Parts: sequence; C-alpha cells; structure tokens
Amino acid sequence: MKTTILINCPDQPGIICTVTSFIHSHGGNVIYLDQHVDKQANVFFMRLESDFETDTFSVTKFKNEFEKNLTKPYQMKWSFSTDDMVPKMALFVSKYNHCLYDLLSRYNSGELKVDIPFIVSNHADLKPIADQFEIPFYHIPMTKATKAIAEEKQLALLKEHNVNFVVLARYMQIISTKIIDQYTNKIINIHHSFLPAFAGAKPYHAAFERGVKIIGATSHYVTEALDAGPIIEQDVTTVSHSHSIKDFIAKGRDLEKIVLSRAVKLHLQRKTMVYNNKTVIFS
Amino acid sequence: MKTTILINCPDQPGIICTVTSFIHSHGGNVIYLDQHVDKQANVFFMRLESDFETDTFSVTKFKNEFEKNLTKPYQMKWSFSTDDMVPKMALFVSKYNHCLYDLLSRYNSGELKVDIPFIVSNHADLKPIADQFEIPFYHIPMTKATKAIAEEKQLALLKEHNVNFVVLARYMQIISTKIIDQYTNKIINIHHSFLPAFAGAKPYHAAFERGVKIIGATSHYVTEALDAGPIIEQDVTTVSHSHSIKDFIAKGRDLEKIVLSRAVKLHLQRKTMVYNNKTVIFS
Amino acid sequence: MKTTILINCPDQPGIICTVTSFIHSHGGNVIYLDQHVDKQANVFFMRLESDFETDTFSVTKFKNEFEKNLTKPYQMKWSFSTDDMVPKMALFVSKYNHCLYDLLSRYNSGELKVDIPFIVSNHADLKPIADQFEIPFYHIPMTKATKAIAEEKQLALLKEHNVNFVVLARYMQIISTKIIDQYTNKIINIHHSFLPAFAGAKPYHAAFERGVKIIGATSHYVTEALDAGPIIEQDVTTVSHSHSIKDFIAKGRDLEKIVLSRAVKLHLQRKTMVYNNKTVIFS
Amino acid sequence: MKTTILINCPDQPGIICTVTSFIHSHGGNVIYLDQHVDKQANVFFMRLESDFETDTFSVTKFKNEFEKNLTKPYQMKWSFSTDDMVPKMALFVSKYNHCLYDLLSRYNSGELKVDIPFIVSNHADLKPIADQFEIPFYHIPMTKATKAIAEEKQLALLKEHNVNFVVLARYMQIISTKIIDQYTNKIINIHHSFLPAFAGAKPYHAAFERGVKIIGATSHYVTEALDAGPIIEQDVTTVSHSHSIKDFIAKGRDLEKIVLSRAVKLHLQRKTMVYNNKTVIFS
Repeated sequence: MKTTILINCPDQPGIICTVTSFIHSHGGNVIYLDQHVDKQANVFFMRLESDFETDTFSVTKFKNEFEKNLTKPYQMKWSFSTDDMVPKMALFVSKYNHCLYDLLSRYNSGELKVDIPFIVSNHADLKPIADQFEIPFYHIPMTKATKAIAEEKQLALLKEHNVNFVVLARYMQIISTKIIDQYTNKIINIHHSFLPAFAGAKPYHAAFERGVKIIGATSHYVTEALDAGPIIEQDVTTVSHSHSIKDFIAKGRDLEKIVLSRAVKLHLQRKTMVYNNKTVIFS
Repeated sequence: MKTTILINCPDQPGIICTVTSFIHSHGGNVIYLDQHVDKQANVFFMRLESDFETDTFSVTKFKNEFEKNLTKPYQMKWSFSTDDMVPKMALFVSKYNHCLYDLLSRYNSGELKVDIPFIVSNHADLKPIADQFEIPFYHIPMTKATKAIAEEKQLALLKEHNVNFVVLARYMQIISTKIIDQYTNKIINIHHSFLPAFAGAKPYHAAFERGVKIIGATSHYVTEALDAGPIIEQDVTTVSHSHSIKDFIAKGRDLEKIVLSRAVKLHLQRKTMVYNNKTVIFS
Repeated sequence: MKTTILINCPDQPGIICTVTSFIHSHGGNVIYLDQHVDKQANVFFMRLESDFETDTFSVTKFKNEFEKNLTKPYQMKWSFSTDDMVPKMALFVSKYNHCLYDLLSRYNSGELKVDIPFIVSNHADLKPIADQFEIPFYHIPMTKATKAIAEEKQLALLKEHNVNFVVLARYMQIISTKIIDQYTNKIINIHHSFLPAFAGAKPYHAAFERGVKIIGATSHYVTEALDAGPIIEQDVTTVSHSHSIKDFIAKGRDLEKIVLSRAVKLHLQRKTMVYNNKTVIFS
Repeated sequence: MKTTILINCPDQPGIICTVTSFIHSHGGNVIYLDQHVDKQANVFFMRLESDFETDTFSVTKFKNEFEKNLTKPYQMKWSFSTDDMVPKMALFVSKYNHCLYDLLSRYNSGELKVDIPFIVSNHADLKPIADQFEIPFYHIPMTKATKAIAEEKQLALLKEHNVNFVVLARYMQIISTKIIDQYTNKIINIHHSFLPAFAGAKPYHAAFERGVKIIGATSHYVTEALDAGPIIEQDVTTVSHSHSIKDFIAKGRDLEKIVLSRAVKLHLQRKTMVYNNKTVIFS
C-alpha cells in the first residue's frame, strides 16, 4: 500500500533519522523523501512516500503509534494518506469556460484522480458543459442581498457531498469567511495576474494600462485577504505593445487553465504544505 | 547611408503610403518598416530603416523637406538618425558590480556601439573595474545634505561630455527631477523586480516574504514617479520555497544584467518610442 | 470590410510604397502592415490588413486590378481574404484526446472562428468526445494493407466538405503524398518534441534516454519528409532527473495542446507564410 | 564544519535511515537531504549536507568508518567534501570572450568560490582579458600536426597546478581521450544549441536553416562522443523569421554565458552526479 506522510514541526537534529527508522520498523519502505527547513521560522517540513505490505499493515495502529511516538514529542503537525483515497473536488464557476473545460477534460481522461460531485455557479451559462460531461450543476444566483443565503446553500452542498476541496475555476465572487474557515487551505483559486501585481478586479486592464511586457497567472489558496493567500503556482507569458487588452485576455486564458490545473494536481498529490501564508511545494 | 526614422502622430489614413513615397522620391529605399496604432489613443507609430546613396544624400535638405511636407501637415513627432552616429552613454553605479561588468564586457567586445565617457558613483568600490576597462571614474559621494550639490556635479559631467543617455546600472539613489527633466526618456534604470510588483526598496525581500514562485527584473525609463516609468524590457525566472533571499539575489543578478543590457541595446538601435508612459518596442 | 493580403515576391525598392498607394487609391485604409525581407533568398514578404467601404468595394474588381498592376510586374505570389470567410477545418485524431479537447473547447467558446465539418480517426476511441461536441465522426481504420483505400476515403471526405485545412491533433499515422500534394501548407501537425531533436516515433522516450533538462513541442506544416516541414510554433518546459517518462508525457500534453492551438490560430488569422521550408510568422 | 556527502548505490530498503543514523551517531546533524531513485536502473542517489562540531570531528576517522560500515555493505560509490575546500578550476578558451568575461566577473565578485590557476587558449586573442583579471594565460597554439604535443602541454599544466576541474568557455577544439580519461565528469563544456539538436559545428547556422522558433544552449560534461555527454543545464530563448544568423549568435551569447555559469556553480556546489550518461542535479 502506497502512503504519503506530510510533516511539519520545530526544527531539531535527528528528525529524518527518527521518522525513517519508525517507518522502517513498522514494515514500511521509504520510496521518496523530500524535506525543507525554513531557517527564518526554524520549521522543518518533510514529505515521505512509503510502501507497506497491504496484507499486514494496519493504518489505525500505524497512526496511533506515530502520534504517540513522534507527533507529540516532536510537536509535529502531520497528515497521512493512502493512495487509494479518491478526494472529492467541487468546482465553482461563473461565466468563463476555459478553466472548466480544461479541468473536466483532464478528469474525463483520467489525468485527475478525483471525484467531482457537482459544479456550482452563480450563473446558468455553463450548465451545458456540465451536462456534456454529466456532472450535476447547481445554479445558485448571488446578489448582495442574497449572498448569505446563497453561501449557506453552497455550504450545504459541500457538506452533503463530503467535499474535500474546492476549485474556483474563474469564479467571480469573493468567498466569505464562513466558507473559508471550514476549508482552510482547501480552496484553490486562479487569479489572472502575476500576483502580487494587479490583485483585485480587471488585472488585464491594469496590466495593459501599465504597459508591462509579461503577463501572468497565479493559483493560490484562498484566505480572507483578497488575492493574498499562499501561492501554489505561477506562470507568465510575454506580451508587447501590439497586443490589445483582448489579446491579453486570450493569451491569459491559456496561462490560467494550465496554472490552475498544475495547482490542482499538486494539491491532489499532497505535494503542498502551507506555513506563514507561504507554500512548500514538494517535488 | 543607413538611416532610422521614428514617427508618431495622430492616426489617419494614408500615412504609410505618404511617408514611403516621400522616402522613395528622395532616393531612399525602405529596407525595414514596422508600425503600430494605439487604437485607444488614436496614435500612429512607425519606424523605418532606409538606405540612401551616401554620395548624393543631403541630411539637412532631407530633414528640412520632411518637416515641411510631413511633420507639419501630419502633426508628427519624429526623429532621424544615421547609423554612423555613436551615442555617448554615461553609467551611474553604486556598489553592485554585475550590471557594470556585463555592460563593460559587451562594450569592450564591440557588442554595444557606444562611447562611455565616464562612470559616476556615490561609492568608490567599483573604481577598480572602471580602471580595469580604462573608463574615467568619478566618485561623487551623496548624503541627504549634499544631494543637491552632488547632482549639480553629475549634471555638469553629463553636459561637459555631451552625454546622450544615462544607464543606472544598479545605482541605488533616486534621481531628482532636475536631471530627469533634461534627460526625459533618456535615463534607463534596472529594477530588481517584476514591476509593478515590489516597487521601491528591497524587492527580493518582499518577494521572499510573499512566497512568489517567480521573480523578475524590469528595465524602464526613469520618470519622477519611483519605479513607475515606461517599461522597456522584463524577464523572469522561477524560484521555490527552497530558495533563500540570498538565492533570490543571486538568481536575480543574472536577470538584471541581461534585462538591462537588452534595454540598452533596444535604446541604441532606436527601437523604443514612449507614449502615455508606455513603450512601443519595434522588432 | 476588413481584408488581409499576403504577398511575397523578389525584393526590390518601392514595393511597400506601391502596394499601399494601390490600396489607398482603391478606397482602402491600411490598418496594419508587417513586412520582412529574407536577405539570403532576396524575397520580400508583406501582410496587410486593410479596411474598405463595404458598400462600394468590389472584391472581384480589386483582385483583377491588383493582379494586372502588381502581381504580374512584381512577380508576386499573393492571397486575398476577407474577414467574413469562415474556413473549414478537418480534425484527424487517433487515441490521445488532449489536443482534441483543447481545440473543441476553443471552438465551442467561439475562440476559433472556424467550421469543423468532421473528425476522422483510425480508431473509434474518441467518438464519445465528437458526440459530446456534436461533430460528425468518421472511423476509418487503417492497416498497411488498407492504407491506400483509407486515404481515398479521407480525401473524399475532405473534398465533399470543401475542407480548407487539416489539423492532425495527435494523429498517429503518416500522411501520404497523395493528400499532402492537395493540401500543401494546409496540414498542421503537432510533434511532441522540440524539433529537430527527436523526430519520429517515441520522442519522450528518446528525450528521457538522453537526459535532457528541457522538453518541447513543435507545430509544423506537413511535408513529405517526416517531421521536417516548416515550423509554425514551438514551446518548451523544464524537466529534471526526477521526472519519469510518464511525467514527460504528462507535462508534454500541456505543451502539445497549447502549441497546436497557437499554430491553428496563426493559420486562421492568415499570419503564416511558407518559403524555403521555413515560415514567416507575422505579428 | 559543513560537509557534503554524495552517494549512489543499488536501491534497497532502509538506506536513508541507515545513513542518517550513521551521521547522527557520529555527532553530525543532517541539514539538507535530497534523494532520487532511478527506477529503470534500480540505483539510489543521495546528497546530504551535514554539520559536525569542528573541534571534535575527525574527517579521517569518519571516512574510514563510513567506508567500513556503509560503502562496502551497500556497494556505494560516495564522495565526501568539506565546505572549506576551494577547488581549482582551469579555463580553456579560444576567441569568443563572453563566457570568459562572465566567469571572471563572477570570480572577481566572489560569486564563484574557486581558484583559477590559469587560462589556456589556442589563440592569443583573449590574453588582454586574462591580464585585466590578473590570471596567468598560456597560449598553446594547436594544429592537426601539433595537437598531441599541445595536449601534453595542457595536461602538464593541469597536473602541475593540481586542477580539479576544467571549464571549456567556448573552446573551439575537440578534447582528446587522453585528457578526458583523466578528468572524467570533470570537464564542463558549453554547446551553443539545444542538444541533441544541432550537435557539432555551426549550430546557429543549422538552426537558422531549419527555421526553428526557439534556440538553446547546453552545458554538459565532456565525453568521447562529441556533444553527447551528460547534460547539466539547458536554457532557451525565442527567435523568429526576423532574426538573422547574426541575431541568433548575439541572442545565443547571453544564453551560453548564463547556462555555463549555472553549470559551473552546480558542479562547485557538488550538486551533480553522473550515471548512465545522464545527470542527477540535486536542488
């Protein structure tokens, strides 16, 4: 059975040795190890992929002993997952379809090992795509007046379907604290600029106005501060004076969908850890 | 004789036809033409490289007739240059040497067709490099109290040597309006971030703090607004959680020197035009 | 009426002036001009976007006079198109779906202004995607023995539907001369390597074997020589020792679909010209 | 005392645990660990940075016990270095100066922690730069007839100065087996193409002829097979039809110097391991 362990704890000598010994002594074989120390914060991070004999391995027992022997003495935060878990991913969209198409194509091809219990949108425009891919689509309109109620409906859907994480595939509404608090570091957004440049609305217009020679896209975990959450992935493409705002938007679409999909894959592979509003992205 | 003409004027039908006919009828052959229309501002931009018979071509006569027949009726701003002109470039530096080394190596190799009458610095640290390349070096210290006087000295040097344009090769002082006004769109700076992100001091520290996955460098013409002038060239490189601020700075050095040198070359080849605080960069 | 003219001819003085005058005198306004001279081959290339008054403009008359006055005396090859023409694009696929999904998503979103009369494949695997997007799908199996007959069927479909150009969206068969001859510079392929490195079969395996640090994708017009036609677009992405062949393939998919779509768009916008087995790509 | 250990050996369970325990039990603290398994070849690679108490740590004793307890039972190849070692790097050049300038600038700035006992060249052209940076310069002319003798002189210099590794900074001669055999994986070359495309002479001319849209540079360890050694680092830049061969060469210079310097730094930081004609590049 293939497993992935993510750890962070105050840095101190001997952690790698201790953890790998522990896994070894419980019948596991470390097949990949990646670690990082944030020297400013004095925090140690590690990701381990290990193989255990499926027949004899007890997840419950392993987790209990890991917690007793390691997480407590080392003050670790940790997570343990087995590769047969298939997470549930909810998609939030508005009117733009390129990120949605890209994620659903990958899902249909088996590239994303995930369940998609539903797509939710504040507009009805993308329902045909949901139908095309046979995913349930919920149209929950949203105005200033109805935002609180609409978010209650969204939350109810998330709970009902035991959603593990949410992807905002060009969802054009701000997520409230009520939802963020329940899905901390579990809501992935794509912002259509090279953050922190051009946070907020209409970044391509702002980039055009400033006369930049490169535009970008940024995928990040959603936090209360708008477009200021931990960055997972960024990419850029060149532009010139000859490009109009419309050209920026068209070039940007290709960036956005690729950057968002990369971020979703990193999250799915449990290669991301968040600390101090920054990410450690394991390779 | 190879010549370069840069034009901008209100857009209207027939400009390309009129200008190329004019050149043709004055014995010139257009060997390269690049044009652009800023549709928002309704401004037409054009760059023409033309060949004239050196024996019979009179620059003065051509310029007079161009102005009478074209620039007035079309309300053109234009510049005319012949390829045998060698511009004078002054270098302003502080303590970092990588951009200076890069520019001087290119100058020594004949890659930059330019004269360098002098290097000026607010510190003495880089004098050995100036000596190594046999360029006069002026150490003009600068404190808050002495800034006005120091800038007078800088201006006097610029005037005395008939300097055409100034390159700030990691010069760590803010240039005053007094100098900017006399060298509008003729002072090229390198800023060590992907502007408009991280303008101002210590951009690598700010980028590290924000946890970006890509860092950049930006070369721009200096205007009164700090790090907000027309962008000439930008480039980026990837970073990760595993890079320290020191690593950012080291990776950034390579970006800075390449981006600055590209901008200097574009300026030298008269491939840049400025309009509305943005550049048109001809190919 | 917006029109696009593409020209190539032996280089000589005065062409830009003559052509722009001609357009002007026929009631047109040049709104974009891009030109290039291949100095080795002494060939002049130009692309002009012009606006004509739709009410009074006669395409037939314009073309006749252009040919009489310009193409003959200047030995021009030229093409003329109006922006209301919607070309017909046939898609050839095999089993991989990422390029197909990407093109169909863009088509459905209105990003590609094109008709897609049909998709043809030597396998039945991708029929569900064709169904999903409601495009006719023809399954034409192909073995060594049946290749000639199968290609006759393909040609018949192309003729019947007046197809203007063909896109090989990871079509895993070699196109015969019989088809290429009738669609010269009208068949666009995506090759999953940074050509000319790793032409032919299994380029990701070869790239892995060689230990390269960057992989690429190349879109080109199909010629008789395998993977050796004029290159339209290329892009690359970094890889490392930690990537398996499977990782190369996954990273490559994103490159392939983006590079192919860019090439299709350039072709659609009539921004490509072919000469000496190379392309001029207008901006 | 900071130390770096590089290991490769047949893969088997428990290696990470065993090695980290060994270091720990000898008073060391692992501060960075990076590992990789080549699953095809079943080889395990690891790089460890460890800190030892300088006062009590005996390098000799550590190495002896490491070999007795680990390298023999695990059939390891390993190398051990302390961070106070300053390697000796010889530079071989011909006529191009950009890579030489770049390396010497970095050396002078303290960016490269290395000694440069001498520069050797088959031409006298670059002697002034050697003088400028006060590095001994040996002009050893080389013709077909004198190659064997010239290489003897080169070897003698390398031996006399206890050179640890050689950098070919656009050295335009093929290195013979006689030298390669004595400096296996210790001679770093820069090739001015995106290998394996355009190996051999005049790659920019070949790239221009092929009409590629991207050019590259590749740094690799020198082996007997020309331009076919293990690749350390590659990078690319975009080109277009508008670029002449001269433009390719100019753009390429910037690539070459950056790619070569990155490779030299990776080698200096002991971040490279060679296996099956490929490199593992630790982060």
